[in-house]
Amino acid sequence: GQTPLAEALVSSGKDPGRIREAALGPGHLAAFVELHIEQGRRLELSGARIGAVTGIVGIRRWQITVTGRADHAGTIPMDGRQDALVAAAPLFMELPQWAQGCGPEVVATIGRLQLEPNTANVVPGVCRFIVEVRAPRMKPFDALERQLTAYCRRHAGWHMEPVYASAPVQLSDDMVSRVFRAASRHKLACMPIGSGAGHDARSFARAGIPTAMIFVPCRQGRSHCPQEEISRQQAADGCRVLLEVLLDLARGGTAALA
Amino acid sequence: GQTPLAEALVSSGKDPGRIREAALGPGHLAAFVELHIEQGRRLELSGARIGAVTGIVGIRRWQITVTGRADHAGTIPMDGRQDALVAAAPLFMELPQWAQGCGPEVVATIGRLQLEPNTANVVPGVCRFIVEVRAPRMKPFDALERQLTAYCRRHAGWHMEPVYASAPVQLSDDMVSRVFRAASRHKLACMPIGSGAGHDARSFARAGIPTAMIFVPCRQGRSHCPQEEISRQQAADGCRVLLEVLLDLARGGTAALA
Repeated sequence: GQTPLAEALVSSGKDPGRIREAALGPGHLAAFVELHIEQGRRLELSGARIGAVTGIVGIRRWQITVTGRADHAGTIPMDGRQDALVAAAPLFMELPQWAQGCGPEVVATIGRLQLEPNTANVVPGVCRFIVEVRAPRMKPFDALERQLTAYCRRHAGWHMEPVYASAPVQLSDDMVSRVFRAASRHKLACMPIGSGAGHDARSFARAGIPTAMIFVPCRQGRSHCPQEEISRQQAADGCRVLLEVLLDLARGGTAALA
Repeated sequence: GQTPLAEALVSSGKDPGRIREAALGPGHLAAFVELHIEQGRRLELSGARIGAVTGIVGIRRWQITVTGRADHAGTIPMDGRQDALVAAAPLFMELPQWAQGCGPEVVATIGRLQLEPNTANVVPGVCRFIVEVRAPRMKPFDALERQLTAYCRRHAGWHMEPVYASAPVQLSDDMVSRVFRAASRHKLACMPIGSGAGHDARSFARAGIPTAMIFVPCRQGRSHCPQEEISRQQAADGCRVLLEVLLDLARGGTAALA
Protein backbone atom coordinates (compact mmCIF):
# COMPACT_ATOMS: atom_id res chain seq x y z
CA GLY A 1 0.00 0.00 0.00
CA GLN A 2 1.00 3.63 -0.45
CA THR A 3 1.35 6.02 2.47
CA PRO A 4 0.14 9.60 1.93
CA LEU A 5 2.95 12.16 2.35
CA ALA A 6 1.16 13.87 5.24
CA GLU A 7 0.96 10.58 7.21
CA ALA A 8 4.60 9.77 6.50
CA LEU A 9 5.60 13.22 7.77
CA VAL A 10 3.62 12.79 10.99
CA SER A 11 5.07 9.33 11.64
CA SER A 12 8.59 10.79 11.38
CA GLY A 13 7.78 13.57 13.83
CA LYS A 14 7.05 16.37 11.34
CA ASP A 15 4.04 18.69 11.11
CA PRO A 16 2.50 18.71 7.60
CA GLY A 17 0.69 21.97 8.41
CA ARG A 18 4.05 23.75 8.66
CA ILE A 19 5.55 22.30 5.47
CA ARG A 20 5.82 25.69 3.75
CA GLU A 21 8.22 26.89 6.46
CA ALA A 22 10.73 24.32 5.19
CA ALA A 23 10.81 25.87 1.69
CA LEU A 24 14.16 27.27 0.58
CA GLY A 25 13.94 30.82 -0.77
CA PRO A 26 15.78 31.96 -3.91
CA GLY A 27 18.52 33.37 -1.63
CA HIS A 28 19.51 29.85 -0.60
CA LEU A 29 20.45 28.86 -4.14
CA ALA A 30 23.60 30.21 -5.81
CA ALA A 31 22.69 28.75 -9.21
CA PHE A 32 20.62 26.07 -10.95
CA VAL A 33 21.98 23.92 -13.78
CA GLU A 34 19.83 21.43 -15.68
CA LEU A 35 20.91 18.79 -18.21
CA HIS A 36 18.28 17.49 -20.64
CA ILE A 37 17.83 15.93 -24.06
CA GLU A 38 16.84 18.52 -26.67
CA GLN A 39 13.56 16.72 -27.55
CA GLY A 40 13.97 18.21 -31.02
CA ARG A 41 16.27 17.71 -34.03
CA ARG A 42 18.21 20.95 -34.29
CA LEU A 43 21.40 19.65 -32.61
CA GLU A 44 21.25 16.37 -34.48
CA LEU A 45 20.76 18.08 -37.84
CA SER A 46 23.52 20.66 -37.21
CA GLY A 47 26.03 18.15 -35.86
CA ALA A 48 26.51 20.11 -32.59
CA ARG A 49 27.06 17.91 -29.55
CA ILE A 50 25.96 20.43 -26.92
CA GLY A 51 23.22 23.06 -26.88
CA ALA A 52 23.58 26.10 -24.63
CA VAL A 53 19.99 27.04 -23.86
CA THR A 54 19.37 30.76 -24.24
CA GLY A 55 15.74 30.80 -23.19
CA ILE A 56 12.67 28.71 -22.55
CA VAL A 57 9.45 29.22 -24.48
CA GLY A 58 6.29 30.52 -22.96
CA ILE A 59 3.13 28.48 -23.45
CA ARG A 60 -0.43 29.67 -23.92
CA ARG A 61 -3.48 27.55 -24.45
CA TRP A 62 -6.98 28.51 -25.46
CA GLN A 63 -10.03 26.28 -25.56
CA ILE A 64 -12.12 26.91 -28.63
CA THR A 65 -15.70 25.65 -28.77
CA VAL A 66 -17.47 25.57 -32.13
CA THR A 67 -21.19 25.07 -31.67
CA GLY A 68 -23.31 23.82 -34.55
CA ARG A 69 -26.40 21.67 -34.25
CA ALA A 70 -26.48 17.94 -33.48
CA ASP A 71 -28.86 16.40 -36.02
CA HIS A 72 -29.75 12.91 -37.20
CA ALA A 73 -27.13 12.14 -39.86
CA GLY A 74 -29.69 10.45 -42.10
CA THR A 75 -32.62 12.82 -42.14
CA ILE A 76 -31.09 16.29 -42.41
CA PRO A 77 -29.90 17.07 -45.94
CA MET A 78 -26.41 18.48 -46.48
CA ASP A 79 -27.66 22.04 -47.06
CA GLY A 80 -29.69 22.08 -43.82
CA ARG A 81 -26.82 21.23 -41.48
CA GLN A 82 -24.74 23.12 -38.99
CA ASP A 83 -21.88 20.65 -38.72
CA ALA A 84 -19.41 21.78 -36.06
CA LEU A 85 -16.52 19.70 -37.46
CA VAL A 86 -16.98 21.01 -41.01
CA ALA A 87 -17.13 24.54 -39.55
CA ALA A 88 -13.93 24.05 -37.55
CA ALA A 89 -11.85 22.36 -40.26
CA PRO A 90 -10.59 25.49 -42.06
CA LEU A 91 -8.88 26.67 -38.86
CA PHE A 92 -7.05 23.33 -38.56
CA MET A 93 -5.43 24.19 -41.90
CA GLU A 94 -4.87 27.91 -41.32
CA LEU A 95 -3.34 27.77 -37.84
CA PRO A 96 -0.01 26.21 -38.95
CA GLN A 97 0.37 29.01 -41.50
CA TRP A 98 -0.33 31.65 -38.88
CA ALA A 99 2.38 30.16 -36.64
CA GLN A 100 4.89 30.00 -39.48
CA GLY A 101 4.16 33.64 -40.22
CA CYS A 102 5.42 34.48 -36.70
CA GLY A 103 8.90 33.03 -37.23
CA PRO A 104 10.66 29.65 -37.08
CA GLU A 105 10.68 29.44 -33.27
CA VAL A 106 6.91 29.78 -32.91
CA VAL A 107 4.71 26.67 -32.94
CA ALA A 108 0.94 26.20 -32.75
CA THR A 109 -0.76 22.86 -32.22
CA ILE A 110 -4.26 21.44 -31.95
CA GLY A 111 -3.45 18.24 -30.08
CA ARG A 112 -6.67 17.71 -28.16
CA LEU A 113 -10.08 17.62 -29.80
CA GLN A 114 -13.49 16.28 -28.85
CA LEU A 115 -16.71 16.06 -30.86
CA GLU A 116 -20.14 15.93 -29.23
CA PRO A 117 -21.97 13.61 -29.25
CA ASN A 118 -19.15 11.85 -31.20
CA THR A 119 -21.20 9.10 -32.76
CA ALA A 120 -21.20 7.97 -36.39
CA ASN A 121 -24.89 8.66 -37.06
CA VAL A 122 -25.19 12.16 -35.59
CA VAL A 123 -23.98 15.41 -37.19
CA PRO A 124 -21.38 16.90 -34.79
CA GLY A 125 -23.15 19.48 -32.63
CA VAL A 126 -20.01 20.69 -30.85
CA CYS A 127 -16.33 20.58 -31.79
CA ARG A 128 -14.12 21.56 -28.87
CA PHE A 129 -10.34 21.76 -29.07
CA ILE A 130 -7.25 23.25 -27.46
CA VAL A 131 -5.01 25.59 -29.42
CA GLU A 132 -1.52 25.62 -27.89
CA VAL A 133 1.04 28.25 -28.87
CA ARG A 134 4.67 28.29 -27.79
CA ALA A 135 7.03 31.19 -28.43
CA PRO A 136 10.31 32.51 -27.01
CA ARG A 137 8.99 36.11 -26.91
CA MET A 138 5.70 37.76 -25.92
CA LYS A 139 5.00 39.38 -29.30
CA PRO A 140 3.92 36.23 -31.18
CA PHE A 141 1.43 35.40 -28.41
CA ASP A 142 -0.24 38.76 -28.80
CA ALA A 143 -0.30 38.45 -32.59
CA LEU A 144 -1.77 34.95 -32.58
CA GLU A 145 -4.29 35.76 -29.86
CA ARG A 146 -5.48 38.71 -31.95
CA GLN A 147 -5.84 36.48 -35.02
CA LEU A 148 -7.71 33.79 -33.09
CA THR A 149 -9.99 36.30 -31.37
CA ALA A 150 -10.85 37.97 -34.66
CA TYR A 151 -11.50 34.57 -36.27
CA CYS A 152 -13.85 33.52 -33.46
CA ARG A 153 -15.72 36.84 -33.66
CA ARG A 154 -16.16 36.56 -37.44
CA HIS A 155 -17.77 33.10 -37.18
CA ALA A 156 -21.13 32.47 -35.49
CA GLY A 157 -21.07 29.84 -32.76
CA TRP A 158 -17.35 30.17 -32.00
CA HIS A 159 -16.22 30.75 -28.43
CA MET A 160 -12.66 31.06 -27.15
CA GLU A 161 -11.27 31.12 -23.64
CA PRO A 162 -7.73 31.09 -22.23
CA VAL A 163 -6.98 27.97 -20.18
CA TYR A 164 -3.21 28.17 -19.55
CA ALA A 165 -0.43 30.72 -19.74
CA SER A 166 3.24 30.73 -18.82
CA ALA A 167 5.62 33.47 -19.89
CA PRO A 168 8.87 32.88 -21.83
CA VAL A 169 12.12 33.36 -19.90
CA GLN A 170 15.58 34.35 -21.06
CA LEU A 171 18.62 32.76 -19.38
CA SER A 172 21.41 35.20 -18.50
CA ASP A 173 24.29 35.74 -20.93
CA ASP A 174 26.70 34.92 -18.12
CA MET A 175 25.21 31.46 -17.57
CA VAL A 176 24.98 30.75 -21.30
CA SER A 177 28.66 31.68 -21.61
CA ARG A 178 29.58 29.20 -18.89
CA VAL A 179 28.01 26.37 -20.91
CA PHE A 180 29.91 27.46 -24.02
CA ARG A 181 33.20 27.60 -22.09
CA ALA A 182 32.60 24.17 -20.53
CA ALA A 183 31.85 22.60 -23.92
CA SER A 184 34.90 24.26 -25.40
CA ARG A 185 37.14 22.80 -22.68
CA HIS A 186 36.01 19.33 -23.80
CA LYS A 187 36.26 20.26 -27.49
CA LEU A 188 32.52 19.64 -27.98
CA ALA A 189 30.84 21.69 -30.71
CA CYS A 190 28.22 23.85 -28.98
CA MET A 191 25.41 26.00 -30.35
CA PRO A 192 22.95 28.43 -28.76
CA ILE A 193 19.42 27.03 -28.76
CA GLY A 194 15.99 27.95 -27.46
CA SER A 195 14.03 25.35 -25.52
CA GLY A 196 10.60 24.57 -26.96
CA ALA A 197 9.65 22.51 -23.93
CA GLY A 198 8.99 23.80 -20.44
CA HIS A 199 11.55 22.70 -17.82
CA ASP A 200 12.22 22.99 -14.08
CA ALA A 201 14.86 25.55 -15.09
CA ARG A 202 12.08 27.97 -16.05
CA SER A 203 10.79 28.15 -12.49
CA PHE A 204 14.28 28.76 -11.09
CA ALA A 205 15.09 31.41 -13.70
CA ARG A 206 11.78 33.17 -13.04
CA ALA A 207 12.61 33.24 -9.31
CA GLY A 208 15.74 35.22 -10.19
CA ILE A 209 18.24 32.40 -9.65
CA PRO A 210 21.15 32.26 -12.17
CA THR A 211 20.15 29.32 -14.35
CA ALA A 212 21.84 27.32 -17.07
CA MET A 213 20.47 24.54 -19.27
CA ILE A 214 22.57 22.07 -21.21
CA PHE A 215 21.01 20.14 -24.11
CA VAL A 216 22.34 17.00 -25.73
CA PRO A 217 20.96 15.70 -29.05
CA CYS A 218 18.52 12.78 -29.05
CA ARG A 219 17.71 10.33 -31.80
CA GLN A 220 15.51 11.99 -34.44
CA GLY A 221 14.24 14.42 -31.83
CA ARG A 222 11.76 11.84 -30.57
CA SER A 223 10.61 12.34 -26.97
CA HIS A 224 7.78 11.31 -24.63
CA CYS A 225 7.37 8.15 -26.69
CA PRO A 226 8.92 4.65 -26.70
CA GLN A 227 11.33 5.74 -29.45
CA GLU A 228 13.10 8.25 -27.15
CA GLU A 229 16.83 7.41 -27.23
CA ILE A 230 20.33 8.82 -26.74
CA SER A 231 23.74 7.16 -27.14
CA ARG A 232 26.15 6.53 -24.29
CA GLN A 233 28.45 9.09 -25.92
CA GLN A 234 25.71 11.73 -25.87
CA ALA A 235 24.99 11.01 -22.20
CA ALA A 236 28.72 11.27 -21.41
CA ASP A 237 29.04 14.56 -23.34
CA GLY A 238 26.21 16.04 -21.29
CA CYS A 239 27.59 14.84 -17.98
CA ARG A 240 31.06 16.23 -18.75
CA VAL A 241 29.68 19.67 -19.54
CA LEU A 242 27.39 19.58 -16.48
CA LEU A 243 30.35 18.76 -14.21
CA GLU A 244 32.50 21.42 -15.89
CA VAL A 245 29.84 24.11 -15.38
CA LEU A 246 29.44 23.14 -11.71
CA LEU A 247 33.24 23.23 -11.18
CA ASP A 248 33.36 26.59 -12.95
CA LEU A 249 30.63 27.96 -10.68
CA ALA A 250 32.38 26.55 -7.60
CA ARG A 251 35.76 27.95 -8.61
CA GLY A 252 34.72 31.38 -9.73
CA GLY A 253 31.79 32.02 -7.47
CA THR A 254 28.34 32.20 -8.99
CA ALA A 255 27.20 34.79 -11.44
CA ALA A 256 24.97 36.20 -8.73
CA LEU A 257 27.79 36.44 -6.20
CA ALA A 258 30.53 37.43 -8.64
CA GLY B 1 -33.03 -7.11 -10.02
CA GLN B 2 -33.32 -8.05 -13.68
CA THR B 3 -34.01 -11.59 -14.86
CA PRO B 4 -32.20 -12.74 -18.00
CA LEU B 5 -34.63 -13.70 -20.79
CA ALA B 6 -33.34 -17.29 -20.87
CA GLU B 7 -34.11 -17.76 -17.15
CA ALA B 8 -37.56 -16.22 -17.49
CA LEU B 9 -38.34 -18.59 -20.37
CA VAL B 10 -37.27 -21.65 -18.36
CA SER B 11 -39.33 -20.59 -15.32
CA SER B 12 -42.44 -20.36 -17.52
CA GLY B 13 -41.86 -23.82 -18.96
CA LYS B 14 -40.13 -22.82 -22.25
CA ASP B 15 -36.85 -24.09 -23.71
CA PRO B 16 -34.50 -21.18 -24.66
CA GLY B 17 -32.50 -23.56 -26.90
CA ARG B 18 -35.53 -23.92 -29.20
CA ILE B 19 -36.40 -20.19 -29.39
CA ARG B 20 -35.74 -19.99 -33.14
CA GLU B 21 -38.53 -22.49 -33.76
CA ALA B 22 -40.99 -19.89 -32.48
CA ALA B 23 -39.98 -17.34 -35.16
CA LEU B 24 -42.71 -16.32 -37.59
CA GLY B 25 -41.63 -16.59 -41.23
CA PRO B 26 -42.47 -13.92 -43.84
CA GLY B 27 -45.46 -16.07 -44.87
CA HIS B 28 -47.16 -15.42 -41.53
CA LEU B 29 -47.33 -11.68 -42.13
CA ALA B 30 -49.75 -10.20 -44.63
CA ALA B 31 -48.28 -6.70 -44.36
CA PHE B 32 -46.25 -4.41 -42.10
CA VAL B 33 -47.18 -0.78 -41.48
CA GLU B 34 -45.00 1.58 -39.42
CA LEU B 35 -45.82 5.08 -38.20
CA HIS B 36 -42.89 7.37 -37.30
CA ILE B 37 -41.88 11.00 -37.05
CA GLU B 38 -39.97 12.13 -40.12
CA GLN B 39 -36.85 13.13 -38.09
CA GLY B 40 -36.23 15.73 -40.79
CA ARG B 41 -37.77 19.00 -41.95
CA ARG B 42 -39.13 18.27 -45.40
CA LEU B 43 -42.76 17.79 -44.31
CA GLU B 44 -42.65 20.78 -41.97
CA LEU B 45 -41.13 23.03 -44.64
CA SER B 46 -43.54 21.88 -47.35
CA GLY B 47 -46.67 22.08 -45.15
CA ALA B 48 -47.60 18.43 -45.85
CA ARG B 49 -49.15 16.65 -42.86
CA ILE B 50 -48.38 13.10 -43.97
CA GLY B 51 -45.38 11.57 -45.72
CA ALA B 52 -45.83 8.37 -47.73
CA VAL B 53 -42.43 6.71 -47.51
CA THR B 54 -41.23 5.46 -50.90
CA GLY B 55 -37.98 3.90 -49.76
CA ILE B 56 -35.47 3.64 -46.94
CA VAL B 57 -31.85 4.65 -47.40
CA GLY B 58 -28.96 2.25 -47.32
CA ILE B 59 -26.12 3.04 -44.95
CA ARG B 60 -22.40 2.43 -45.40
CA ARG B 61 -19.63 3.33 -42.99
CA TRP B 62 -15.89 3.32 -43.46
CA GLN B 63 -13.25 3.88 -40.82
CA ILE B 64 -10.44 6.08 -42.05
CA THR B 65 -7.15 6.20 -40.17
CA VAL B 66 -4.70 8.99 -40.95
CA THR B 67 -1.28 8.24 -39.51
CA GLY B 68 1.21 11.05 -38.97
CA ARG B 69 3.84 11.22 -36.23
CA ALA B 70 3.18 12.03 -32.58
CA ASP B 71 5.81 14.61 -31.59
CA HIS B 72 6.40 16.95 -28.68
CA ALA B 73 4.35 20.04 -29.54
CA GLY B 74 7.07 22.37 -28.26
CA THR B 75 10.25 21.05 -29.76
CA ILE B 76 9.37 20.08 -33.32
CA PRO B 77 9.12 23.12 -35.61
CA MET B 78 6.10 23.55 -37.86
CA ASP B 79 7.95 22.44 -41.01
CA GLY B 80 9.19 19.21 -39.38
CA ARG B 81 5.77 17.86 -38.41
CA GLN B 82 3.49 15.13 -39.67
CA ASP B 83 0.30 16.32 -37.97
CA ALA B 84 -2.50 13.81 -38.57
CA LEU B 85 -5.28 16.34 -37.85
CA VAL B 86 -3.87 18.94 -40.25
CA ALA B 87 -3.52 16.17 -42.86
CA ALA B 88 -7.13 15.02 -42.38
CA ALA B 89 -8.78 18.46 -42.31
CA PRO B 90 -9.13 19.00 -46.10
CA LEU B 91 -11.32 15.89 -46.35
CA PHE B 92 -13.64 17.24 -43.64
CA MET B 93 -14.33 20.15 -46.00
CA GLU B 94 -14.46 18.19 -49.27
CA LEU B 95 -16.73 15.34 -48.19
CA PRO B 96 -19.93 17.47 -47.93
CA GLN B 97 -19.31 18.70 -51.49
CA TRP B 98 -18.85 15.14 -52.76
CA ALA B 99 -22.17 14.14 -51.18
CA GLN B 100 -23.98 17.15 -52.64
CA GLY B 101 -22.58 16.22 -56.05
CA CYS B 102 -24.46 12.91 -55.79
CA GLY B 103 -27.89 14.51 -55.42
CA PRO B 104 -30.10 16.00 -52.71
CA GLU B 105 -31.03 12.67 -51.11
CA VAL B 106 -27.42 11.63 -50.45
CA VAL B 107 -25.74 12.57 -47.17
CA ALA B 108 -22.23 12.02 -45.84
CA THR B 109 -21.20 12.65 -42.26
CA ILE B 110 -18.10 12.46 -40.10
CA GLY B 111 -19.75 12.19 -36.70
CA ARG B 112 -17.17 10.18 -34.80
CA LEU B 113 -13.51 11.21 -34.57
CA GLN B 114 -10.63 10.40 -32.24
CA LEU B 115 -7.11 11.84 -32.08
CA GLU B 116 -4.17 9.93 -30.60
CA PRO B 117 -2.76 10.63 -28.13
CA ASN B 118 -5.31 13.49 -27.87
CA THR B 119 -3.39 15.71 -25.50
CA ALA B 120 -2.75 19.46 -25.83
CA ASN B 121 1.05 19.23 -25.89
CA VAL B 122 1.54 16.45 -28.43
CA VAL B 123 1.21 16.76 -32.21
CA PRO B 124 -1.59 14.36 -33.26
CA GLY B 125 0.00 11.10 -34.41
CA VAL B 126 -3.24 9.47 -35.51
CA CYS B 127 -6.61 10.90 -36.58
CA ARG B 128 -9.24 8.17 -36.87
CA PHE B 129 -12.82 8.82 -37.96
CA ILE B 130 -15.95 7.23 -39.41
CA VAL B 131 -17.33 8.38 -42.74
CA GLU B 132 -21.03 7.50 -42.98
CA VAL B 133 -22.89 7.71 -46.29
CA ARG B 134 -26.65 7.27 -46.73
CA ALA B 135 -28.35 7.03 -50.11
CA PRO B 136 -31.63 5.73 -51.50
CA ARG B 137 -29.86 3.97 -54.42
CA MET B 138 -26.69 1.90 -54.79
CA LYS B 139 -25.00 4.16 -57.36
CA PRO B 140 -23.99 6.99 -54.98
CA PHE B 141 -22.35 4.44 -52.65
CA ASP B 142 -20.17 3.18 -55.46
CA ALA B 143 -19.29 6.71 -56.57
CA LEU B 144 -18.38 7.92 -53.07
CA GLU B 145 -16.46 4.75 -52.24
CA ARG B 146 -14.39 5.25 -55.40
CA GLN B 147 -13.70 8.88 -54.44
CA LEU B 148 -12.71 7.95 -50.90
CA THR B 149 -10.54 5.04 -52.02
CA ALA B 150 -8.72 7.21 -54.56
CA TYR B 151 -8.24 9.95 -51.94
CA CYS B 152 -6.76 7.49 -49.42
CA ARG B 153 -4.41 6.04 -52.08
CA ARG B 154 -3.18 9.50 -53.11
CA HIS B 155 -2.19 10.44 -49.55
CA ALA B 156 0.58 8.70 -47.61
CA GLY B 157 -0.47 7.31 -44.24
CA TRP B 158 -4.20 7.02 -45.08
CA HIS B 159 -5.98 3.73 -44.54
CA MET B 160 -9.67 2.98 -45.12
CA GLU B 161 -11.79 -0.02 -44.21
CA PRO B 162 -15.52 -0.74 -44.44
CA VAL B 163 -17.19 -1.20 -41.05
CA TYR B 164 -20.92 -1.30 -41.83
CA ALA B 165 -23.20 -1.74 -44.82
CA SER B 166 -26.95 -2.02 -45.31
CA ALA B 167 -28.64 -1.80 -48.71
CA PRO B 168 -31.37 0.70 -49.60
CA VAL B 169 -34.91 -0.69 -50.07
CA GLN B 170 -37.84 0.52 -52.14
CA LEU B 171 -41.35 0.17 -50.77
CA SER B 172 -43.92 -1.15 -53.27
CA ASP B 173 -46.02 1.29 -55.28
CA ASP B 174 -49.14 -0.51 -54.05
CA MET B 175 -48.33 0.12 -50.38
CA VAL B 176 -47.31 3.75 -51.04
CA SER B 177 -50.65 4.26 -52.82
CA ARG B 178 -52.53 2.95 -49.80
CA VAL B 179 -50.93 5.64 -47.62
CA PHE B 180 -51.88 8.33 -50.16
CA ARG B 181 -55.48 7.07 -50.30
CA ALA B 182 -55.76 6.92 -46.51
CA ALA B 183 -54.44 10.50 -46.15
CA SER B 184 -56.80 11.66 -48.87
CA ARG B 185 -59.80 10.18 -47.04
CA HIS B 186 -58.92 12.38 -44.05
CA LYS B 187 -58.15 15.38 -46.30
CA LEU B 188 -54.53 15.45 -45.09
CA ALA B 189 -51.97 16.82 -47.56
CA CYS B 190 -49.59 13.97 -48.31
CA MET B 191 -46.25 13.88 -50.12
CA PRO B 192 -43.92 11.05 -51.21
CA ILE B 193 -40.73 11.04 -49.16
CA GLY B 194 -37.62 8.93 -48.78
CA SER B 195 -36.55 7.90 -45.28
CA GLY B 196 -33.04 8.97 -44.35
CA ALA B 197 -33.14 6.91 -41.17
CA GLY B 198 -33.14 3.13 -40.93
CA HIS B 199 -36.37 1.64 -39.53
CA ASP B 200 -37.86 -1.73 -38.57
CA ALA B 201 -39.78 -1.42 -41.85
CA ARG B 202 -36.53 -1.97 -43.76
CA SER B 203 -36.14 -5.49 -42.35
CA PHE B 204 -39.74 -6.41 -43.19
CA ALA B 205 -39.52 -5.00 -46.70
CA ARG B 206 -36.23 -6.85 -47.30
CA ALA B 207 -37.92 -10.09 -46.21
CA GLY B 208 -40.44 -9.57 -49.03
CA ILE B 209 -43.36 -8.52 -46.83
CA PRO B 210 -45.57 -5.72 -48.25
CA THR B 211 -44.51 -2.74 -46.16
CA ALA B 212 -45.78 0.80 -45.71
CA MET B 213 -44.33 3.66 -43.69
CA ILE B 214 -46.23 6.74 -42.63
CA PHE B 215 -44.33 9.86 -41.57
CA VAL B 216 -45.67 12.81 -39.62
CA PRO B 217 -43.75 16.09 -39.34
CA CYS B 218 -41.80 16.88 -36.17
CA ARG B 219 -40.72 20.21 -34.77
CA GLN B 220 -37.76 21.55 -36.75
CA GLY B 221 -36.83 18.01 -37.72
CA ARG B 222 -35.09 17.53 -34.38
CA SER B 223 -34.77 13.90 -33.26
CA HIS B 224 -32.76 11.74 -30.86
CA CYS B 225 -32.30 14.80 -28.66
CA PRO B 226 -34.27 16.47 -25.84
CA GLN B 227 -35.78 18.91 -28.37
CA GLU B 228 -37.70 16.10 -30.16
CA GLU B 229 -41.36 17.12 -30.25
CA ILE B 230 -44.65 16.69 -32.12
CA SER B 231 -48.05 18.27 -31.52
CA ARG B 232 -51.15 16.34 -30.44
CA GLN B 233 -52.61 17.17 -33.87
CA GLN B 234 -49.60 15.60 -35.63
CA ALA B 235 -49.89 12.47 -33.49
CA ALA B 236 -53.62 12.26 -34.26
CA ASP B 237 -53.01 12.74 -38.02
CA GLY B 238 -50.57 9.84 -38.01
CA CYS B 239 -52.85 7.55 -36.01
CA ARG B 240 -55.81 8.26 -38.32
CA VAL B 241 -53.79 7.37 -41.41
CA LEU B 242 -52.35 4.28 -39.73
CA LEU B 243 -55.84 3.05 -38.82
CA GLU B 244 -57.16 3.84 -42.32
CA VAL B 245 -54.34 1.87 -43.98
CA LEU B 246 -54.97 -1.10 -41.68
CA LEU B 247 -58.72 -1.00 -42.40
CA ASP B 248 -57.94 -0.72 -46.11
CA LEU B 249 -55.68 -3.78 -45.93
CA ALA B 250 -58.29 -5.70 -43.92
CA ARG B 251 -61.09 -4.78 -46.34
CA GLY B 252 -59.30 -5.32 -49.61
CA GLY B 253 -56.94 -8.08 -48.70
CA THR B 254 -53.24 -7.35 -48.62
CA ALA B 255 -51.14 -6.43 -51.61
CA ALA B 256 -49.47 -9.83 -51.32
CA LEU B 257 -52.76 -11.72 -51.23
CA ALA B 258 -54.69 -9.53 -53.67
